[in-house]
Amino acid sequence: MSLVLDPAAQDLLFREARTANTFTDEPVTDEQVQAIYDLVKYGPTAFNQSPLRVTLVRSPEARERLVQHMAEGNRPKTATAPLVAILSADNEFHEELPQLFPHFPQAKDAFFSERPAREQAAALNAALQAAYFIVGVRAAGLAAGPMTGFDFAGVQKEFLDGDHTPLMVVNIGKPGEDAWFPRSPRLAYDDVITTV
Amino acid sequence: MSLVLDPAAQDLLFREARTANTFTDEPVTDEQVQAIYDLVKYGPTAFNQSPLRVTLVRSPEARERLVQHMAEGNRPKTATAPLVAILSADNEFHEELPQLFPHFPQAKDAFFSERPAREQAAALNAALQAAYFIVGVRAAGLAAGPMTGFDFAGVQKEFLDGDHTPLMVVNIGKPGEDAWFPRSPRLAYDDVITTV
Repeated sequence: MSLVLDPAAQDLLFREARTANTFTDEPVTDEQVQAIYDLVKYGPTAFNQSPLRVTLVRSPEARERLVQHMAEGNRPKTATAPLVAILSADNEFHEELPQLFPHFPQAKDAFFSERPAREQAAALNAALQAAYFIVGVRAAGLAAGPMTGFDFAGVQKEFLDGDHTPLMVVNIGKPGEDAWFPRSPRLAYDDVITTV
Repeated sequence: MSLVLDPAAQDLLFREARTANTFTDEPVTDEQVQAIYDLVKYGPTAFNQSPLRVTLVRSPEARERLVQHMAEGNRPKTATAPLVAILSADNEFHEELPQLFPHFPQAKDAFFSERPAREQAAALNAALQAAYFIVGVRAAGLAAGPMTGFDFAGVQKEFLDGDHTPLMVVNIGKPGEDAWFPRSPRLAYDDVITTV
């Protein structure tokens, strides 16, 4: 076996973890979200720029507003998941960079003085952090249901501002009945990995 | 404790794992890369589109060509890491979609008939998979050194083709002497997570 990670952890995070489409009623607490964040905040980003922002949709009124912007097939699960989170990229992350990357404080001006450069960096690095977040949800024994099927402009206008680009909406909770389809096939090693 | 993941696994994947800047000479084998892939291939992507592709740079001649395209500060570590991988997004991933997403084979034509839609989806979902890959490298007891400081057009021309967009270059191996800076600070929970 070439991995040192405990097989039970492999199962929890990847092999038995699945994208859930239904959930039980069991709440997801702020303590759980805090524990997830306190773990996955250490995942690496370029210049430690850490552009991911998370909006927890807790009030019924906000949930209702969000559901209206979801693609029709995503509405029932977004309406019923114990917790729904909007993940976005902060395109003004560079303001925090001198604090986040103290051994090279010039990075803010050297690389990120132009908005397009920031948007490009934020899109990539917030996506990395979104994946760490999904892994973290699983580390808490919960199922994640990430979705990109929604009106991005509508969600941005309703919940964010012009400096924050939505990445995905994630349903979070304990999986319910018939929570998933059968596991879909994955690409073979040789279809993904080549050697030069 | 709100996480169910074993604390040793938390340390291995996030808390004690660090981005390495130096490496030992110990080789990274194809068996290790296979084990990493066989774990992280299960990480979720939209429509299971799985657009990440990995180019392992094994020959000295290819390594030399890659080093030339790296930013100057990244050259020494890229030249000396036991293994270097180019991660890219396959913008023609939709060709595999009927096989990868068998319960909705229409997705290929319904959502991905236009190249810009594919490029946008591939960029996000390959970035998610890049993060799973970094976690997988750590699961193998290795350190990852992801880098975006390189000539993207040059690397694409030299190693890929017009259908594959480079995402990052990752150095992989056992950490060497003075492998990292002190851990940089992370954002506080309240700076990242808001509730509505």
